[in-house]
Amino acid sequence: MESAKETVERVRRGEVRAAARLMRDLDDGVPGAREILKQLYAHSGRAHIIGITGSPGVGKSTLTDRLIQDLRQEGRTVGVVAVDPTSPFTGGAILGDRIRMQRHALDEGVFIRSLATRGHFGGLTASARAVITVLDAMGKDYILVETVGVGQDEVEIAATAYTTMVVTVPGLGDDIQAIKAGILEVADILVVNKADREGAERTCQDLLQMLELQTFRKTHAWKPRVFLTQAKDNQGVEELMAGVREHQEFLSRDEGKALKAARYSRVRQEFLDLLKEGVYTHLVRQLTQDGRLEGILQEILEKRTDPYSASEAFIAQTLGSALRRKPNEGG
Amino acid sequence: MESAKETVERVRRGEVRAAARLMRDLDDGVPGAREILKQLYAHSGRAHIIGITGSPGVGKSTLTDRLIQDLRQEGRTVGVVAVDPTSPFTGGAILGDRIRMQRHALDEGVFIRSLATRGHFGGLTASARAVITVLDAMGKDYILVETVGVGQDEVEIAATAYTTMVVTVPGLGDDIQAIKAGILEVADILVVNKADREGAERTCQDLLQMLELQTFRKTHAWKPRVFLTQAKDNQGVEELMAGVREHQEFLSRDEGKALKAARYSRVRQEFLDLLKEGVYTHLVRQLTQDGRLEGILQEILEKRTDPYSASEAFIAQTLGSALRRKPNEGG
Repeated sequence: MESAKETVERVRRGEVRAAARLMRDLDDGVPGAREILKQLYAHSGRAHIIGITGSPGVGKSTLTDRLIQDLRQEGRTVGVVAVDPTSPFTGGAILGDRIRMQRHALDEGVFIRSLATRGHFGGLTASARAVITVLDAMGKDYILVETVGVGQDEVEIAATAYTTMVVTVPGLGDDIQAIKAGILEVADILVVNKADREGAERTCQDLLQMLELQTFRKTHAWKPRVFLTQAKDNQGVEELMAGVREHQEFLSRDEGKALKAARYSRVRQEFLDLLKEGVYTHLVRQLTQDGRLEGILQEILEKRTDPYSASEAFIAQTLGSALRRKPNEGG
Repeated sequence: MESAKETVERVRRGEVRAAARLMRDLDDGVPGAREILKQLYAHSGRAHIIGITGSPGVGKSTLTDRLIQDLRQEGRTVGVVAVDPTSPFTGGAILGDRIRMQRHALDEGVFIRSLATRGHFGGLTASARAVITVLDAMGKDYILVETVGVGQDEVEIAATAYTTMVVTVPGLGDDIQAIKAGILEVADILVVNKADREGAERTCQDLLQMLELQTFRKTHAWKPRVFLTQAKDNQGVEELMAGVREHQEFLSRDEGKALKAARYSRVRQEFLDLLKEGVYTHLVRQLTQDGRLEGILQEILEKRTDPYSASEAFIAQTLGSALRRKPNEGG
């Protein structure tokens, strides 16, 4: 069994097997894996993280595939995290899109990791963040984070990237148009893929108009760009990559003022997510063990209290005083 | 200004204006609204809650519309919660599907509420649960909860219904097939909508085969039914409703053994969701106020710690001792 220090070194050297093993161990909750992740964190923070999000079927995977190709031709190394709420028994691996991407599997400069929910809902965000940290510590120049842009958590993962790309296609129904609008706010770059479809230009115009309506944009220095692509035929991808680079340059202007701000909000979200999950796990375990959860649930079921009052009472009782104490007074 | 008691009574009598006002107040965080919700909780628990989930564009809203019609013809009252991650500036109201559903707007026996994210991600689950409680206390016989079946939270809202319906259509791409598989596990009833499309029968067969692979089903008394519908033309909806009633009867067998189990897991999820959100909100507020969050973030940014160690240390310091104390010792 190799030491944590050895694993850290091997991952930092970019060794694919060590990284893949660590990611599996993190997923499975293998003891010690989290300690290695902590040590790797100090070596992260150099990669440019690009979020790619959008509704199912807009061609995110094909686009991601093209971006990998483009970055590799420039000699950049690339890590990919594909977050997909697939089933434990289908997994991410058998999907056509994933297979297509696997043509990069033999390229040492590319590392692709698919994440599924593995039978329970929750924890996907934490898993994705851990994978990003590992890829970053491996020294990847770019990390592409592909998520389905519908769920709240999934959008958030993409939104905490340094450059967030929102992908759509012309002629989607009302339902999807609305979703697109919902995630428009987090976009640095908008992509209208499948540009050969009718109404592509119109969709671009609509998006630009919607961007105009976003009053918060007026206080921001970056004005989102809209690109037309046909990822399948590699059309428009070069222009899109130029847009990404333009955003990267924007972030590094004024001694990296905007990048620092993006990094700050990324670290903030990362810490708060971990705190939220950690506190919750801790509470549920403790409340289950000492039988308090069962008691509270019975009281609610018998209508002697309600979930709102019960949760408030619990928080006031356990957290109120604990939080007011200074850390050095804690026991 | 009317008293809380008056509002509770008006909502319990099913008054639409009082209920609508309360839902708005809950969304806006108006003081006192939450207290009314607590009182209403004691009067909830009678409605049959049906979750309807599936990918964008499968026709969930049209199907919901048909189910409303069917239930109304039987003389049942219906509440609808449509959870849509739409933008604050598009809102749920301008969508075609929503407008279609609004033909029930003049029917006093139907109450429809659309929920959007309102500019920030998070809190949608809590909002939906509050609306369900209000509709339930209003005395609605059925509550239909329509969510986009892609995000984790969205699926979970539908999954905690008593009868969960998963909707799909024939001939979707790999991407959507996978999502469908991921939510298959929570389905009591499967619907293949747009049955006039090619491959409808095949999709049914595929679903039945996938259900066979779910080993956990073997220990469950209920075997999910698969229905073919064409909601647009009202075809197959009657049969589907018969399936819902069959599931309802199944739940009430043996003195409601299965219904009690469903209710228990629903209350458990509701309480734990509220606890998670409440604790998180409490922590962030406290940590922001006393400046500790800023200090922790700076330490992480300077790589003197990492988010994993920092969150663990914080939890150990503040929660460790607090939780071990018995409630009556707390101060």
